[in-house]
Amino acid sequence: MVRVAILGQGYVGTIFAWGLARLKKGLLEPWGVPLARVDFGVPVESLEIVASFDVDAAKVGRSLYEIARGYGLEPEPELKEVAVSPGLKLGSTPSFIKTAALDDGRPLEDALARFRELLDDARPDVLIDVTTTVRSRPLFTWEEAERRVAEGSLPHSQVYAYLALERSGVAYVNAQPAHVACSPAFVERAAEVGSLVLGDDGATGATPLTVDIAEHLAERNRRVLSVAQFNIGGNTDFLSLTEPERNLAKEETKSGFLEDVLGYEPPHFIRPTGYLEPLGDRKFVAMHIQWVSFGGFVDELVVNMRINDSPALAGYLVDLARLAYASLRAGVYGTVPEINLFYMKRPGPLGTRHKAKMLAYRDLLSFVERLRESRGLPAREAVTRARTSNP
Amino acid sequence: MVRVAILGQGYVGTIFAWGLARLKKGLLEPWGVPLARVDFGVPVESLEIVASFDVDAAKVGRSLYEIARGYGLEPEPELKEVAVSPGLKLGSTPSFIKTAALDDGRPLEDALARFRELLDDARPDVLIDVTTTVRSRPLFTWEEAERRVAEGSLPHSQVYAYLALERSGVAYVNAQPAHVACSPAFVERAAEVGSLVLGDDGATGATPLTVDIAEHLAERNRRVLSVAQFNIGGNTDFLSLTEPERNLAKEETKSGFLEDVLGYEPPHFIRPTGYLEPLGDRKFVAMHIQWVSFGGFVDELVVNMRINDSPALAGYLVDLARLAYASLRAGVYGTVPEINLFYMKRPGPLGTRHKAKMLAYRDLLSFVERLRESRGLPAREAVTRARTSNP
Amino acid sequence: MVRVAILGQGYVGTIFAWGLARLKKGLLEPWGVPLARVDFGVPVESLEIVASFDVDAAKVGRSLYEIARGYGLEPEPELKEVAVSPGLKLGSTPSFIKTAALDDGRPLEDALARFRELLDDARPDVLIDVTTTVRSRPLFTWEEAERRVAEGSLPHSQVYAYLALERSGVAYVNAQPAHVACSPAFVERAAEVGSLVLGDDGATGATPLTVDIAEHLAERNRRVLSVAQFNIGGNTDFLSLTEPERNLAKEETKSGFLEDVLGYEPPHFIRPTGYLEPLGDRKFVAMHIQWVSFGGFVDELVVNMRINDSPALAGYLVDLARLAYASLRAGVYGTVPEINLFYMKRPGPLGTRHKAKMLAYRDLLSFVERLRESRGLPAREAVTRARTSNP
Amino acid sequence: MVRVAILGQGYVGTIFAWGLARLKKGLLEPWGVPLARVDFGVPVESLEIVASFDVDAAKVGRSLYEIARGYGLEPEPELKEVAVSPGLKLGSTPSFIKTAALDDGRPLEDALARFRELLDDARPDVLIDVTTTVRSRPLFTWEEAERRVAEGSLPHSQVYAYLALERSGVAYVNAQPAHVACSPAFVERAAEVGSLVLGDDGATGATPLTVDIAEHLAERNRRVLSVAQFNIGGNTDFLSLTEPERNLAKEETKSGFLEDVLGYEPPHFIRPTGYLEPLGDRKFVAMHIQWVSFGGFVDELVVNMRINDSPALAGYLVDLARLAYASLRAGVYGTVPEINLFYMKRPGPLGTRHKAKMLAYRDLLSFVERLRESRGLPAREAVTRARTSNP
Repeated sequence: MVRVAILGQGYVGTIFAWGLARLKKGLLEPWGVPLARVDFGVPVESLEIVASFDVDAAKVGRSLYEIARGYGLEPEPELKEVAVSPGLKLGSTPSFIKTAALDDGRPLEDALARFRELLDDARPDVLIDVTTTVRSRPLFTWEEAERRVAEGSLPHSQVYAYLALERSGVAYVNAQPAHVACSPAFVERAAEVGSLVLGDDGATGATPLTVDIAEHLAERNRRVLSVAQFNIGGNTDFLSLTEPERNLAKEETKSGFLEDVLGYEPPHFIRPTGYLEPLGDRKFVAMHIQWVSFGGFVDELVVNMRINDSPALAGYLVDLARLAYASLRAGVYGTVPEINLFYMKRPGPLGTRHKAKMLAYRDLLSFVERLRESRGLPAREAVTRARTSNP
Repeated sequence: MVRVAILGQGYVGTIFAWGLARLKKGLLEPWGVPLARVDFGVPVESLEIVASFDVDAAKVGRSLYEIARGYGLEPEPELKEVAVSPGLKLGSTPSFIKTAALDDGRPLEDALARFRELLDDARPDVLIDVTTTVRSRPLFTWEEAERRVAEGSLPHSQVYAYLALERSGVAYVNAQPAHVACSPAFVERAAEVGSLVLGDDGATGATPLTVDIAEHLAERNRRVLSVAQFNIGGNTDFLSLTEPERNLAKEETKSGFLEDVLGYEPPHFIRPTGYLEPLGDRKFVAMHIQWVSFGGFVDELVVNMRINDSPALAGYLVDLARLAYASLRAGVYGTVPEINLFYMKRPGPLGTRHKAKMLAYRDLLSFVERLRESRGLPAREAVTRARTSNP
Repeated sequence: MVRVAILGQGYVGTIFAWGLARLKKGLLEPWGVPLARVDFGVPVESLEIVASFDVDAAKVGRSLYEIARGYGLEPEPELKEVAVSPGLKLGSTPSFIKTAALDDGRPLEDALARFRELLDDARPDVLIDVTTTVRSRPLFTWEEAERRVAEGSLPHSQVYAYLALERSGVAYVNAQPAHVACSPAFVERAAEVGSLVLGDDGATGATPLTVDIAEHLAERNRRVLSVAQFNIGGNTDFLSLTEPERNLAKEETKSGFLEDVLGYEPPHFIRPTGYLEPLGDRKFVAMHIQWVSFGGFVDELVVNMRINDSPALAGYLVDLARLAYASLRAGVYGTVPEINLFYMKRPGPLGTRHKAKMLAYRDLLSFVERLRESRGLPAREAVTRARTSNP
Repeated sequence: MVRVAILGQGYVGTIFAWGLARLKKGLLEPWGVPLARVDFGVPVESLEIVASFDVDAAKVGRSLYEIARGYGLEPEPELKEVAVSPGLKLGSTPSFIKTAALDDGRPLEDALARFRELLDDARPDVLIDVTTTVRSRPLFTWEEAERRVAEGSLPHSQVYAYLALERSGVAYVNAQPAHVACSPAFVERAAEVGSLVLGDDGATGATPLTVDIAEHLAERNRRVLSVAQFNIGGNTDFLSLTEPERNLAKEETKSGFLEDVLGYEPPHFIRPTGYLEPLGDRKFVAMHIQWVSFGGFVDELVVNMRINDSPALAGYLVDLARLAYASLRAGVYGTVPEINLFYMKRPGPLGTRHKAKMLAYRDLLSFVERLRESRGLPAREAVTRARTSNP
């Protein structure tokens, strides 16, 4: 059994919990779980959600069952067994949330201590950070992290990662834009204490497709003249992005790939653009790319998407929790670029060059082969399976 | 020097000749030539157009210079040196073309003999087939081909390929949908006589992008529900596709990849759809794909493109002529799936399974490495170059 | 009470019946009913479905309640009261339908007589034709209609219209492409016997929007260079359009407007394009328009839509049934171009020039004013209401 | 002869001058000039550009001929006759422009006096304001305007309008978002002194189309759930909109129409969104609209456009200069809502309710009829012409 804790019980975390319960009972096809058909020794059935943390007063104390219903989902009864514990709001929680956080009316030091106790109780193997987007800077030493946690100047994700890495043998999966797997302080610490950080910022929507389209163009030696990409949605994530600092954080993780993939950086405008409530979680994406073809002729490509934002990430989390656990068990500590490059927008460790997602996928399959070998499973099968087992 | 003959002096063949002359003089950046920066011993400068064939009375006897001007291009004076010779119309030339073909008012046997003489004079190393789309069936034995050429029941592309393969040491690059590289008769014959066929049907527009998008979805285990793809343009190719048989030929090469890439065949409608003169060579593509994401949520993707159809293929031809020649020189006969899988819509030999173009590109680079090694060039460099030398 | 008979109990007719029942009980907002807020003396509540005809063996004998459930709708119990009677298949019913028609194994003459009896029983005020698309020619004299009905050479819609117009004081609303309101024979007959025909072919999807966009461009004196429009869907209507004759019928009603609205006919390709089952009733539309702006610069517009085909037409039917009845009551016989020009793709009578839908809407409001006046309702109010009462 | 002065010799003003010269010589079809075919007594040939003002050091002192060539246009020699005079930069000129303005190193009072002298020399009948977008507030009294001009606290457009309205018998056409025709101070002053202000903000791109699409939906009683509209371009206008205040000014004029047209204000996000240099003047627009259709079904519409921004407005200016002059001559002073409602995004006077552009066009044609009558031209012809004379 893999003990999983969710940080941030928003729509992503809830779809994850709801879908996982249904997957385990065979009520749901595992569409959207990239490695659903690849056996590396950690089946979906082994995942168990043991804790959940949030700062939203409307959620703290409620069960995942109640929260799932609040999102209009039909949850399995098992979700009644996990209640949301209060988390840490720090200075980085959006102002539109009414909080019931550990650090509401309690000194930071006490709040941290209280959170440590909750972790002691939950004993998670894997912590999944799906909290609100926050901007951050990389942290370079554990001492720096220590000092800044104490003084209360770090955003919530880096504080959670710090608290997780005080422990050993745990994995921290950071699916949002804060620098966790891109903080050398955390990667080095994890390597030292037999832990793991994966991240940063799940790559689920228009960005990974754009990466692959960029590679597609590069392979034909087409010269990209410009890229414009707009995203607008109506979920809480988009609402939080109306705060300029958060928007900037997102913009940074969304456009970093162009130079690495193309070999040059074309003029571009790639941003989460706005909040429009009736779009709900099904965001609208519009993208325009133009390039020079043979003979100097200019071609144009427009992409429009309606993407269910949260389910796409929730599907990834099913893999990430399993891969994190399998890696730990195989003695892989620190971070795993082969995982990050496929699943993340800004793959750790800091300074990792992007590559086409399709190429990252091949590397991921090779890494999974190594995991299989470490378990004594027959080699070369994972790749084959992944290509053939779509029913 | 690589001696190149063009079969079908339409817009593609003309952009190719016009652009090649400019490339050789450094007047054009090699955008749209996929391997422009990869050295495998056959530089662009070594290509020389030595002959051109067409059946259009408005073209036969004219120089490539005059024809390029007729298409509104500003050609280099070198193009005056090649005049269009009459080709074979057979039963497969579109009815809207007024012909001046070898088989106009001359017995087929005599016309074939005359074409053989023209080939004797031109001595091409590489023949490039950019004639009008035609529907065909695979040919399984050389005897069958022989008999059907004689009785006049084969479409022009298969007849041209037959006549080319009577010779040895030549490469036939088939950039249109007829079965040439997908005719076992031709591949086996080429292997026997030290020749090569590449094909079929250049993959330049929406199809290769769709292949890669399909792979992108498959890697995330998203279940594709349907694919609709429309193409409409105003060039002669689209005009010829208004004849139902040709349209069917095109449809076949456009949608074969889905099952191979996805592992199942989703309902789809993928077709060249119509002719609309004012769109010119810059076709309009509209595509709709929907799939199931995690939790059963349905996402949608719409792609709209304006693509300069002919330049895209002309850029490929610069590579294909060079790769064909380099392969022959390295003793690679028959056909080369590594080349076909990247550049072609229905890659030969018959029965080849499609794969994502991005994966085919990796295989192509490996094949190019082998070409380099056979020339004593240092190994492992091509790949690196291809990824880093975009200026 | 207005007695309504439905001809063709497909998805449109079923959404109409299902939605009408819900509207009457206040369970549904009247969105999609253009004149929902305009009072011309025939409230929605007065409509009563008294009969339904179909030839599909899977429907004949079933109640509208059962049929609605079969389409996945949650119907009101009232729908149990109407059962589907057998209709006439003639030579024009799609081959993919297994029929249980009046003319299955019964001489045509007897079948017609039987249908007349069913009409005698139902005594409809308004017949709504939402049968499968069929191609036809206009009929010019009642005698011609009589003769061709007898010999069985007319498609079902024209036969139904003929049988309806044998009666007096009835309205025939033709929402499909056959020539009914565009058959002088029917319009003249209706005028003589105090009846009414409205039609042809409900204008609900991309076509009316294209008409208005064309007007928008014309008002700015922009020169339209080309129009491409594709439609693909997965309902029975699209399935039937895979039969070439039906497709042609649809193409004709879809592109007739360009010359009338623009003053010239630009090159265009406007067609229902294909059937793709997973799209269901929510068709996908792609449209490309390019034009010359000031100074000779060329602009481009691409429209993509996902439109619920059947509900859009069902909403119109709520108006059309009411308007037809109100017109009859006001002594307006023959046909009403003011109604047809707004609601229909090929507005009758034959030869009517198209106009922008937005201008047709103004004329419709004026006609409704006249209906109001004939009922002694205060003038000038309808227009105002229509513009201001959206809540 | 109508004497026209251009304020802001950017790309719009230059396309206008370049195109007008070509129109007058019959070298250009009048596409994009809405009333090109409507005779109201002021033919295109009567327009004469007599002055031009700008603050850009790279333009002041240059002839329109030189400036047109700088934009890559091939200008007529007549454009050599007009040189750009220095204008007023005030506090509202974008920081990225190196200025050579009248108020560079000269007290404001002197600069204003100097501008008055330049107007005395030029004696324009019509001033056209195509300066950079600036945010403003309406001005309610002439005294307020007077005081704030003197203290230098007004943006350039309002200062120019003030200086123009010190004179009588002139028309000020404000094609940018500042409050001019929406400043009661200016409209009242114009009415008093026999002058005219038209404005504000030319409605040429996505906004007027969106207005008409909104009307189209309203007429079918479809309930609009949300509207998202993005605009991105590479011209100086988009560059200036990267300054937040200007962006806000634009956003205000772009989204005011929804409530007036629909009768309610749906959630919306309608904004100029970004600057992307390689798009040039041909901006990219993406729009998403979703609505409720009959039965509660939700439809979606996506519009993508590539629009040449400046030519579209330049074409309008040909009409606006002529209409302004014709109005003055017919004794129409103050402002003309019938003109503003069709050509402008925020039609003056302040408080004017928007209406569909297609309805505004009808009112415009009626107004033009009145202009014709005042000239003794036969009535009822303009409308007819406008609808039928597209060749």
